Amino acid sequence: MHPLTMKTETPSASSSPETILIIGGVAGGASAAARARRHSEKTRIVIIERGPDVSFANCGLPYHIGGEIPDRSELALQTPDSLRQLLNLEVRTLTEATRIDRENQTVHLRNLTTGTEEDHPYDHLILSPGAAPLRPPLPGIDDPRILTLRNLQDMDRILTQAATTERIAIIGAGFIGLEMAEQLTHLGKSVTLIELQPQVLPQLDPEMTLPLLAELRDHGVDLILGDGIEAFSPEENGIAARLKSGRWLHAGLIILSIGVRPENQLAKDAGLTLGSRGHITVNPFQQTSDPAIYAVGDACEGIDPILGTPAAIALGGPANRQGRTAADHIHQKQNARPYPGSIGTSIVRVFAQSAGITGWSEARLKSLGHPYQTITVNGPSHASYFPGSQTITLKILWSQSDGRLLGAQAVGKDGVDKRLDILATAIRGRLTIDDLAHLELSYAPPFGNAKDVVNIAGFAAGNLRDGHLLPTPTLAQAGPQIIDVRPAATAAKQPVPGAKNIPLPQLRQRLNEIDPTQPVHTICQMGKTSYFAARILANHGFNAHSILGGAHHQLHP
Amino acid sequence: MHPLTMKTETPSASSSPETILIIGGVAGGASAAARARRHSEKTRIVIIERGPDVSFANCGLPYHIGGEIPDRSELALQTPDSLRQLLNLEVRTLTEATRIDRENQTVHLRNLTTGTEEDHPYDHLILSPGAAPLRPPLPGIDDPRILTLRNLQDMDRILTQAATTERIAIIGAGFIGLEMAEQLTHLGKSVTLIELQPQVLPQLDPEMTLPLLAELRDHGVDLILGDGIEAFSPEENGIAARLKSGRWLHAGLIILSIGVRPENQLAKDAGLTLGSRGHITVNPFQQTSDPAIYAVGDACEGIDPILGTPAAIALGGPANRQGRTAADHIHQKQNARPYPGSIGTSIVRVFAQSAGITGWSEARLKSLGHPYQTITVNGPSHASYFPGSQTITLKILWSQSDGRLLGAQAVGKDGVDKRLDILATAIRGRLTIDDLAHLELSYAPPFGNAKDVVNIAGFAAGNLRDGHLLPTPTLAQAGPQIIDVRPAATAAKQPVPGAKNIPLPQLRQRLNEIDPTQPVHTICQMGKTSYFAARILANHGFNAHSILGGAHHQLHP
Repeated sequence: MHPLTMKTETPSASSSPETILIIGGVAGGASAAARARRHSEKTRIVIIERGPDVSFANCGLPYHIGGEIPDRSELALQTPDSLRQLLNLEVRTLTEATRIDRENQTVHLRNLTTGTEEDHPYDHLILSPGAAPLRPPLPGIDDPRILTLRNLQDMDRILTQAATTERIAIIGAGFIGLEMAEQLTHLGKSVTLIELQPQVLPQLDPEMTLPLLAELRDHGVDLILGDGIEAFSPEENGIAARLKSGRWLHAGLIILSIGVRPENQLAKDAGLTLGSRGHITVNPFQQTSDPAIYAVGDACEGIDPILGTPAAIALGGPANRQGRTAADHIHQKQNARPYPGSIGTSIVRVFAQSAGITGWSEARLKSLGHPYQTITVNGPSHASYFPGSQTITLKILWSQSDGRLLGAQAVGKDGVDKRLDILATAIRGRLTIDDLAHLELSYAPPFGNAKDVVNIAGFAAGNLRDGHLLPTPTLAQAGPQIIDVRPAATAAKQPVPGAKNIPLPQLRQRLNEIDPTQPVHTICQMGKTSYFAARILANHGFNAHSILGGAHHQLHP
Repeated sequence: MHPLTMKTETPSASSSPETILIIGGVAGGASAAARARRHSEKTRIVIIERGPDVSFANCGLPYHIGGEIPDRSELALQTPDSLRQLLNLEVRTLTEATRIDRENQTVHLRNLTTGTEEDHPYDHLILSPGAAPLRPPLPGIDDPRILTLRNLQDMDRILTQAATTERIAIIGAGFIGLEMAEQLTHLGKSVTLIELQPQVLPQLDPEMTLPLLAELRDHGVDLILGDGIEAFSPEENGIAARLKSGRWLHAGLIILSIGVRPENQLAKDAGLTLGSRGHITVNPFQQTSDPAIYAVGDACEGIDPILGTPAAIALGGPANRQGRTAADHIHQKQNARPYPGSIGTSIVRVFAQSAGITGWSEARLKSLGHPYQTITVNGPSHASYFPGSQTITLKILWSQSDGRLLGAQAVGKDGVDKRLDILATAIRGRLTIDDLAHLELSYAPPFGNAKDVVNIAGFAAGNLRDGHLLPTPTLAQAGPQIIDVRPAATAAKQPVPGAKNIPLPQLRQRLNEIDPTQPVHTICQMGKTSYFAARILANHGFNAHSILGGAHHQLHP
């Protein structure tokens, strides 16, 4: 007898293949499916997707609207057919999962085209439903010219409507709102951007977003901050929006980008544990309160690895890697490696400026009551003597007790992404401000600096901790005695209100012009020379403080 | 009596101020002086510099030669006068330190202009003498048309000589040799680049430098690898160089960039402990074997923080931060924070390409005998669906025992510096390959990827460690059964020698065309699809291996 024919199935093996059922076929769901297939050719993997598309590049949607990605097909990373061919998946688009029967391990499905229903069995269920754009129940909200942007169909609707009008209002100045403002301006539209907070990009601390304001205004975007919408009403050739301030806005298209809510109905109905904001609670292997059910992506909530609080982060990178983790755990069980938690690294381009954040902001640390220190510095994107160098403003925040980095924010015209990534990596490595001072980063004049702005932030942080630097965070907090140590010509061209000019090279000879009985606050262009001046003054017995970030950071047009 | 007049000096305070004497006023020395002054206005700080300049941008020298930094004065970061004014330093240029009297704590100085000599006292001495370009004692080496590049005067000499000739030979294809080849080509010169090793940029593993070869050749640089100079001889209108191979080269200017040796004579004569290659041995506070004497910069040797071996790294960033550490230790003693050691992060631009390294290369790990694993992957510099994305090839090396990252190398046309900096930070944080998989980097289509190439390297490394990926490092190592899984048109356009084409979507249907008794090696364009194919094959029982980096990395023009 040929040995191969003797092989029989062991009693423990099921006669039908194991089934992984995945609800939602975009970032997290598609990643989970791909990884699961690499673990096994035998598993049956089924993706259920309510929309017509799977695995599309939703971060690219604004850029097709603005024409920067001209070819719409670039955004379809995979199609149901390509997933079938490449990964041997069963993909059911335009199909809705309406109910989970946890006891029988089935999901009730409804085909949105034919209306047919069925109960689909699973051995492992992965929920990747994503999040839905918020649409507040305001009067007139159902007007078809009030649109949100989440998928390719939304994008097509916005493109169609945008073609009919020159005036577009965007409500919400977060990441997507800012990208849309940029792209619609590229299209030649007249754009009004309305934000309830008194700043754009409320994820960042307000002072870090000021360069974006100037950039938006320079490109003709009409900014309305600290105001919200109360009601919409159709009018001839457009739609009017009434603001809380009483002002009326008129536009041919209104884009709502005020945030998202997790698509949690299926999980909620199934009795899975939810977090305080409605996200599906998961463990580090992405398992929900039912170990046969995983949740990944925008709808789930894990633990923040920095301070251990619950964290729900709606970003593509985490969604992909959470999907991978779920698939690993299904296949490898206790040998799988846990998902370490999301720290919320994100970035946005606003015309020539870019800005971003990783980890905790000052506002969030304050609301948590965690003791922290912070510093803001400027530095060139690469050697300032090499052409094309741009100033980056970098803010870091660290734990007061041990100097561990908790968060960072950066803004500038070049190299912001690099610094955020360095600092995101530093957070993952639990590095301290002293470690930042000594990071050894790649340096050649076109690429970096012998002392990178990240090093400078580490130096400044250490100086603050050690008492060498007494910082004055804002010009408004400076007392009456302000010394501008820039060259006289610079100080005359862009005067600092209330400051007396003593250029640094003259400082030691002109100490008698400074009142030693009063605190003195020094300011310069970038926040470096003012620190040098404050050290000179402190070492001569003055109560000397340096105004952070200099005129570059403190004075905005 | 006015209270201020009652203040008298305490017996422990010396009547004359403490003196810090610094030998060498460029990167490390200038940084030490600046930091020391911020600690105290009272310390006497004296800089002795053999050359005429202090604190110049030596990394910028090639770029002024090529005209990319048009203004020479941009390179003079400080002048003796500006250091006097800003930092109240005593700066003596064109002055040589010839002897240290450790017992009496004096240094013998000679003014190179006037010839006057003196013994200068110090309380703390900081040696920052730098390194000198190697000039091997070959016949004819003293020809004035054989130049090295280390300071502004060298630069001026090269510019003067380059103006007289169209033919320039560069000996040594390290960082400076490559920068000079690029910049002299920009000037329209006919450039020959000679390197003793069979590769350019010998700091990197050879396969990672192949894209640079193509780039140099595309720009008309004549490359001679694996050959060295035996002798020089003057000839009419130029100089001839005889190579070891017997070949003769003719040029109007020869630039030697074959490395540097530490300027250690002063330290050696003073009996300070030196390392095996002649560098001045220092502790983590940059103290030499004499605690009153510090050494910083290219001439000193500390400890590699990755594997604990002695490390002498000739780079500007470390020099600056070592100078700062020495000044801190003089002022703060045991409260100062140690210098953590240098990992040798460096980068070079070669026309449109850039390449760099952080930490240990494969060649160095092999010579040390440290057990490691390595993987090479490709990924886009930012979302491939967004215009302008370029492919980055990334190699990482990690400790076999615990997965800790030991080094990384990258090459590509965009974003190489960012990935090196992320990985340099990861090394500092002692991150593992599993941590790399989950680094949360900034992602928006113009800046990054939902799965960055660093994440992909972490994924691939974990797959290798866990046995999911059997890598074939080079096409040459692949056995006879190679399957090219790219689309038929791509495979036809750029065929892989000896490979059979089965596009991935057809693979499951064409398994019968593959011999299950022989190992099978899959290849694709970027090294990702071939891994997918190898997983399919492995899960169907084949002994399947994936060729790393795909045709992009394995096939070079």
